Amino acid sequence: MTQHLPAIVVLLTILLQFGTVWATGHAREKYGVKAPAISGHPGFERAWRVQMNTLESTAIFLPTLWLAVQYGFSLWGGLAGLVWVFGRVWYAVAYLKDPAKRGPGYMVSSAGWGVVLVLGVVGLVRALFIG
Amino acid sequence: MTQHLPAIVVLLTILLQFGTVWATGHAREKYGVKAPAISGHPGFERAWRVQMNTLESTAIFLPTLWLAVQYGFSLWGGLAGLVWVFGRVWYAVAYLKDPAKRGPGYMVSSAGWGVVLVLGVVGLVRALFIG
Amino acid sequence: MTQHLPAIVVLLTILLQFGTVWATGHAREKYGVKAPAISGHPGFERAWRVQMNTLESTAIFLPTLWLAVQYGFSLWGGLAGLVWVFGRVWYAVAYLKDPAKRGPGYMVSSAGWGVVLVLGVVGLVRALFIG
Repeated sequence: MTQHLPAIVVLLTILLQFGTVWATGHAREKYGVKAPAISGHPGFERAWRVQMNTLESTAIFLPTLWLAVQYGFSLWGGLAGLVWVFGRVWYAVAYLKDPAKRGPGYMVSSAGWGVVLVLGVVGLVRALFIG
Repeated sequence: MTQHLPAIVVLLTILLQFGTVWATGHAREKYGVKAPAISGHPGFERAWRVQMNTLESTAIFLPTLWLAVQYGFSLWGGLAGLVWVFGRVWYAVAYLKDPAKRGPGYMVSSAGWGVVLVLGVVGLVRALFIG
Repeated sequence: MTQHLPAIVVLLTILLQFGTVWATGHAREKYGVKAPAISGHPGFERAWRVQMNTLESTAIFLPTLWLAVQYGFSLWGGLAGLVWVFGRVWYAVAYLKDPAKRGPGYMVSSAGWGVVLVLGVVGLVRALFIG
């Protein structure tokens, strides 16, 4: 189980991203914003920003998760990764309703990512200097 | 050959992304849209949307491919990955000409990705419960 | 040390991305551009374009680095990766001041990426045809 935890986090990250892409496509139709436009209705713009923010965040998170797992923290990196996923879902759902409420989810996901980063750095430094 | 198929798909994905970035830079010059503007001419906006869509799709696809390969589906995951690449190229070329014609390529790439995802999930579940 | 060089490059890439995300958030507050808007002040738009360009570039770079490392070029791929990171930092800092000055850093990072790509392709072709 433990050694598969990072893969479960990767799968949840995939589903999270797919969800935000789906929400943007849905908002494009619902609010009649025709491609390639990316503005025209606040509801669409929110969905699009959620998708982009999730993408940006994932592009930072997955390499960090790789680093932590590569250097020996599958369990703790995986658990902190679950916190990141939970925070990102919270962020996305809250932002879609009201951009002003995106704070708490963002903070939880940032904390989860921060822990994964610290684990990765600790593991890398340990490997470099202790071997 | 089989064990290198996912790496070939990764290489094609890199070239696909590079192609869409190049097309956006080309459109920026051709239509005189000066950075950091991201609007001003439909031709540029199409190129930019194609690039962003390709990026979003790649950020979902590559982790999914990793999952399928990691859990034993190098061959079938690689073949479905080739379908994904083919669909994304079709999508990009069609969208650059006319946003309304982006459907078929999108559907082909989605089908390819869907197969890779199912393989990854099957492999992960098998590893978790059968071992 | 050599075998950890790619991981160091990954860590620097994570920090680079985090830096550009931070700069965008900072510019959003400084210039009073409220989410989900992505325009309204050239200073914010520059920061946002730098972040997006860094993201696009990273999404191409990391798979390329993986390819080079996977096929036997940890040292040279890692060194060229450091050149890529250096060029991207230069690009980001220059672009934030003046979009017209983003050229040199872009060229340096492109050269670094190009070398990593050639290494990856050479390694893959070698593995396919020599075994």
